[in-house]
Amino acid sequence: MDKVFSYQHHIQYYETDGMRIVHHSNYIRWMEEARTAMMEQLGYGYDRMERDGVSIPVISAHCEYKEMMRFGQSCRIEVRVTAVSQVRMAVSYAFYDTETGHLCATGATGHCFVGQNGRPVSLKKKLPEIFELFCSIVSAPEN
Amino acid sequence: MDKVFSYQHHIQYYETDGMRIVHHSNYIRWMEEARTAMMEQLGYGYDRMERDGVSIPVISAHCEYKEMMRFGQSCRIEVRVTAVSQVRMAVSYAFYDTETGHLCATGATGHCFVGQNGRPVSLKKKLPEIFELFCSIVSAPEN
Amino acid sequence: MDKVFSYQHHIQYYETDGMRIVHHSNYIRWMEEARTAMMEQLGYGYDRMERDGVSIPVISAHCEYKEMMRFGQSCRIEVRVTAVSQVRMAVSYAFYDTETGHLCATGATGHCFVGQNGRPVSLKKKLPEIFELFCSIVSAPEN
Amino acid sequence: MDKVFSYQHHIQYYETDGMRIVHHSNYIRWMEEARTAMMEQLGYGYDRMERDGVSIPVISAHCEYKEMMRFGQSCRIEVRVTAVSQVRMAVSYAFYDTETGHLCATGATGHCFVGQNGRPVSLKKKLPEIFELFCSIVSAPEN
Repeated sequence: MDKVFSYQHHIQYYETDGMRIVHHSNYIRWMEEARTAMMEQLGYGYDRMERDGVSIPVISAHCEYKEMMRFGQSCRIEVRVTAVSQVRMAVSYAFYDTETGHLCATGATGHCFVGQNGRPVSLKKKLPEIFELFCSIVSAPEN
Repeated sequence: MDKVFSYQHHIQYYETDGMRIVHHSNYIRWMEEARTAMMEQLGYGYDRMERDGVSIPVISAHCEYKEMMRFGQSCRIEVRVTAVSQVRMAVSYAFYDTETGHLCATGATGHCFVGQNGRPVSLKKKLPEIFELFCSIVSAPEN
Repeated sequence: MDKVFSYQHHIQYYETDGMRIVHHSNYIRWMEEARTAMMEQLGYGYDRMERDGVSIPVISAHCEYKEMMRFGQSCRIEVRVTAVSQVRMAVSYAFYDTETGHLCATGATGHCFVGQNGRPVSLKKKLPEIFELFCSIVSAPEN
Repeated sequence: MDKVFSYQHHIQYYETDGMRIVHHSNYIRWMEEARTAMMEQLGYGYDRMERDGVSIPVISAHCEYKEMMRFGQSCRIEVRVTAVSQVRMAVSYAFYDTETGHLCATGATGHCFVGQNGRPVSLKKKLPEIFELFCSIVSAPEN
């Protein structure tokens, strides 16, 4: 199975700000879009995971902005899971201008697994098959 | 009791768009801010209402934009409840540039009352005191 | 040429709110997404229009919410231009749950045409071919 | 002059997500709110800086989430400038629940200074008094 997932985001006008560039907060949202798309591609949507009683809140988020993006551009996001434990997961992201292929930003998020009561759960115990699925796609972040 | 409530919103940079004006979708959010502030001023916060088992989802929203607003401006929003029934409520809004006093936009939202199961409830039966409170502040929308 | 344009929006987690439904302000943003996609489908992207010196700010927005939408759903938006004059345009929208086909919301926006200085322009004079293009797709709003 | 600035953000319903907590992307926006408020408190608003020809885009953003925040809470944000050079600036943030005083999140942003053409400028040369002002408030990030 491929361990690098790809997601395409078309930049919206409402995502731009007064500098006529994409507001930096949106990349944090696109990371979520890309994670969600990754899970869809894995055949296990995040909506199903929540119905199965597990949520994956974000406990840290990081983004480095290298090249400003603008309305009219499209952004290809590469996502990979870089670490999984029973209670945590790390994901990394690379944002490319779809047309030019330029690397415009990189990012990373840290996550924990929680049950419906909001308390930490062991994914390995709660959803062992999904835990194995996540483990099977762990890869090193791109340099 | 005064029937017109006032709320101040300081325009944020992330609310601007590539035209260097406030993106129009934010006025819909400011209506929610102003409704929330109105309930705080009434001494019955919306968080408490939700804990009491009633939510007030939006079933219609309308906004007329008259003068563009920009970062660095502050917006004063006048809110008034224009109608209340056992199951519905209507609210209207006027957006002013705090400094110049110009009317920059007007808006209106329609709401219903729902219980924790998401189904309509009679506010009069479920929370009679709050129903009376809302009835006591009904006023005509400004012309 | 078909006069009804269709756009698909995948509902994101960050678009949900504490009621576990899509926050109503997002439909206003989806209208913009759908307008943008319509222009792409017409072969004249909004980014190109701005480079050609014309913007289409929103002067009114309206939305009626009929059925709540949730994360995990996909929304198909039908867009049509319902009126065009030299200085104004009206657009209407119908939001469907892609899977069930249910009509979940309807909306409308009013627009004017402005030049780079932010002042009204006659689209007919400034970009006559685009004016003709818009005129050619005018259709009645769906009942 | 005090080197730690304080800003109060009232949590809005539209900032919550389907987990009934504040969506993590909003903290990135609150950092911007807090920076903007800091500049207001310094007597030199960011809108004036842009009119003076200098913007301060974000080149990195980081957030650690420690305690989930919810609608109905208020968030007090402490902001401090942790480094300034001729072309860059670093800012750090601590997010507290106003009522309990709990530290709910910490964050940091990196910035550069750019001119109206979007190219880097030396703040020391372009706006020497503002450069001195920023230098005068540099302090170590809280541990």
